Amino acid sequence: MQTLTKFLNAAAAIVGENGLTVDRDLIDPWLTDWRGIYTGKTLALASPSSTAQLADLVKLCAAMQVPIVPQGGNSGMVGGATPDQTGSQLLLSLRKMNTIRRIDPDERLAVCEAGVILQTLHEAAQAHGMRFPLTLGGKGSATIGGLISTNAGGTQVLRHGVMRAQVLGLEAVLADGSIFNGLIPLKKDNRGFDLKQMFIGSEGTLGIVAAASLRLSPAIADRVVLWAGVRSIHAARQLLLHFQRHAASALEGFEVIPAHCMESLLSHLPDARAPLADPHPWHCLIELTADTQGTPALSDTAVAILASAADGGILDDAVISASEAQAEAFWHLRDSIASAERALGPAVQHDISVPVEHMPDFVELASNEVEARFSGTKAVAFGHLGDGNVHFHVLAPPGVDADHWRTTDAREISSFVYDLVTDWNGSISAEHGIGQAKRDELARLGDPVSLALIRRVKNALDPGDILNPGKLVPLAPSGDKP
Amino acid sequence: MQTLTKFLNAAAAIVGENGLTVDRDLIDPWLTDWRGIYTGKTLALASPSSTAQLADLVKLCAAMQVPIVPQGGNSGMVGGATPDQTGSQLLLSLRKMNTIRRIDPDERLAVCEAGVILQTLHEAAQAHGMRFPLTLGGKGSATIGGLISTNAGGTQVLRHGVMRAQVLGLEAVLADGSIFNGLIPLKKDNRGFDLKQMFIGSEGTLGIVAAASLRLSPAIADRVVLWAGVRSIHAARQLLLHFQRHAASALEGFEVIPAHCMESLLSHLPDARAPLADPHPWHCLIELTADTQGTPALSDTAVAILASAADGGILDDAVISASEAQAEAFWHLRDSIASAERALGPAVQHDISVPVEHMPDFVELASNEVEARFSGTKAVAFGHLGDGNVHFHVLAPPGVDADHWRTTDAREISSFVYDLVTDWNGSISAEHGIGQAKRDELARLGDPVSLALIRRVKNALDPGDILNPGKLVPLAPSGDKP
Repeated sequence: MQTLTKFLNAAAAIVGENGLTVDRDLIDPWLTDWRGIYTGKTLALASPSSTAQLADLVKLCAAMQVPIVPQGGNSGMVGGATPDQTGSQLLLSLRKMNTIRRIDPDERLAVCEAGVILQTLHEAAQAHGMRFPLTLGGKGSATIGGLISTNAGGTQVLRHGVMRAQVLGLEAVLADGSIFNGLIPLKKDNRGFDLKQMFIGSEGTLGIVAAASLRLSPAIADRVVLWAGVRSIHAARQLLLHFQRHAASALEGFEVIPAHCMESLLSHLPDARAPLADPHPWHCLIELTADTQGTPALSDTAVAILASAADGGILDDAVISASEAQAEAFWHLRDSIASAERALGPAVQHDISVPVEHMPDFVELASNEVEARFSGTKAVAFGHLGDGNVHFHVLAPPGVDADHWRTTDAREISSFVYDLVTDWNGSISAEHGIGQAKRDELARLGDPVSLALIRRVKNALDPGDILNPGKLVPLAPSGDKP
Repeated sequence: MQTLTKFLNAAAAIVGENGLTVDRDLIDPWLTDWRGIYTGKTLALASPSSTAQLADLVKLCAAMQVPIVPQGGNSGMVGGATPDQTGSQLLLSLRKMNTIRRIDPDERLAVCEAGVILQTLHEAAQAHGMRFPLTLGGKGSATIGGLISTNAGGTQVLRHGVMRAQVLGLEAVLADGSIFNGLIPLKKDNRGFDLKQMFIGSEGTLGIVAAASLRLSPAIADRVVLWAGVRSIHAARQLLLHFQRHAASALEGFEVIPAHCMESLLSHLPDARAPLADPHPWHCLIELTADTQGTPALSDTAVAILASAADGGILDDAVISASEAQAEAFWHLRDSIASAERALGPAVQHDISVPVEHMPDFVELASNEVEARFSGTKAVAFGHLGDGNVHFHVLAPPGVDADHWRTTDAREISSFVYDLVTDWNGSISAEHGIGQAKRDELARLGDPVSLALIRRVKNALDPGDILNPGKLVPLAPSGDKP
């Protein structure tokens, strides 16, 4: 207890009285993850307002062996920012470090602190005639630090790449409180290992992202959103290839939506209208964008591509957004799938990827096998076909007890799905990360050579296991720490 | 001696009689680096022909503590593939592992073994209507493994990025002979750390690249090469920004060439013609490419951009290539600069980068300071302005003894240049890497936090210091191994 008081006093001296709280009312909202699955305890909530404060705080934690759980917008999907049950971990909010230090349209560059919210960066870039080319559903709360730490994906990856591709420079605080200073972006720099790569996607287990230099793109000058109906997910992939060939670099997103999701969307959203008059087994949401207003306009290009696809028998029906409002309405349907599916009852979600060319076969086979093996379930796959990444949801049989199902059959279903994905050379986490939710499955299914490497790197950079312990890094086969 | 015989017999049993030689005539050509600066000794030259053989060989080396120096085309610039003087290191050629395992235009993917030569991949991609979008002067000998291990750059980085951006998957052999299997490309995969990033640009010190999955682009459908004369390097940067704004994603390369290089080119290449009639203080070589033949054609776009640049006073004169032959002739001039400059007498080269927006000021200041401080020298900067990366050459005063100068003044000049670059937040190695040539300068000028991280990672992945010892990883301040 005396040690705790000593730690809290020292921490308050670093971050200021306003930067540290033990008030449960202030802390509680941050102790449960976004999906409501994990709830932890903490000894305090610390909110440094600068990299220097952050570094001093980590130094203190290292000296007093206080584990740290870094947190941005608390919108992660795998419990990666939720402390454990011991109450001995410090919850570290980066949300006060929210300055956009620089926006430079000439250099196509934004320098942001970790706590900047994605939507804030979108708006700031737009005000300069530029664009930050990564977006996702949680953009109103997700922070730059969290997006980097989880190597976020989203719906524009097909053209612009994942978060890693946007990071040109990084400032991070290491486990001993020293500051890795790699913020200044150099387009070419081969001075030894590219160390910043280590902190991207490592979920705060190797260092805490304090700030980043990010790539901006020119604002969109021309845009068209299409909705197409096809007879199968194989036809959807043919349509994807057709667009990749003919739309070249204008293809920004290619999402697939099965009939089942369309039905739940239309019953869940009373004001929603189906973009196409007739039902189709599969729907494709396709976005084309260009940085310059060219000739022909993208809508003309889109018409020509759709016409040749229809001639080739790939396509059954399609419509092109006639206005920005209609384009937004198409995307609103896509973005509402998760909540529409949730309204149908208990389900278990899987964020998976396989090589793009195998995705149609995988979706068909996995759906059949899951439904055959787990009687009464319904498998639904939707999402980023262009990235080989779908959200594979399995709905519980009607009438089950939700809580019981989640701790029994749902777990068995997940293991079954992850086994299948692994057999297909895929990933059990395409964009959500590992956190605490998938650590045991990673240990079970990961390649032993890769798992050993992860443990070695973790041990080299954080030998005291101070940084987000219990997340991402699978335990060694013996059960010992790395 | 008995141990050596035992090792050689065991190695021959792994790679076969044809895969191992101690014949000096066969080995000697590979013991001196491309620039002729470093010559080493070796106990044998081993050439595995598969990843399995490579893994077994590394296992043997680890067990018998034989250090390994991996080598691809031996076209590196920093002595990174040349063994040391002891004769105790094994020279490991990857050149027999030269199968292109797969070219898939639909998936825009090539799977290559480490020994595939860059030009071979270019031709194979072209035969499939595709393109591997990275090139450099040494393409006839440089191998995929070497390009990945050194994170190569080249002249198409502005549009396509460095080698790291082309690597979608990687197979590598680790220090204990285990195989890291990350070859299957998944566009989204967040199963823990992205381990393959560690092997890119680490010069064989963390693992040996055995094979890679690489990104292909559609073949070029439209291309135009421009030559422009401007009054200063500041005007060159204005022209770069003008093209970035108006040519959007078509801008593939932007190189700068000072008047001094033009003069040496024209006297070095008797058949060469100056693209522009009049002399100019600086020249810009600009390439635009497109994957589809659009309207307007790139040549029309180029004319419009040049006209508005001339109206804005950025540009003094310019010409657009009228044919592929003329486009090639422009690039031939650019590619001949290094040899034209070499013909002028001894010089010391620096491959440096600074943030793009500071490059004009840096080139002016650094040239003035070097010439003022080292009497009789001439500083010449040329190259990839679009990437913030120039080759900064300093020519010796006329009449000096070349060998003496290289070991005295030239070293002092390099330290002076690297000090300046570091003051300007730049890199002492933009694209060539560290190898043995720059290891001491990295130790002297690198950020201590970064240097400590490099040593920690090296020690974690190669605790026995088996993999390319003496390269890249700076010694600890005490002089001890990490």
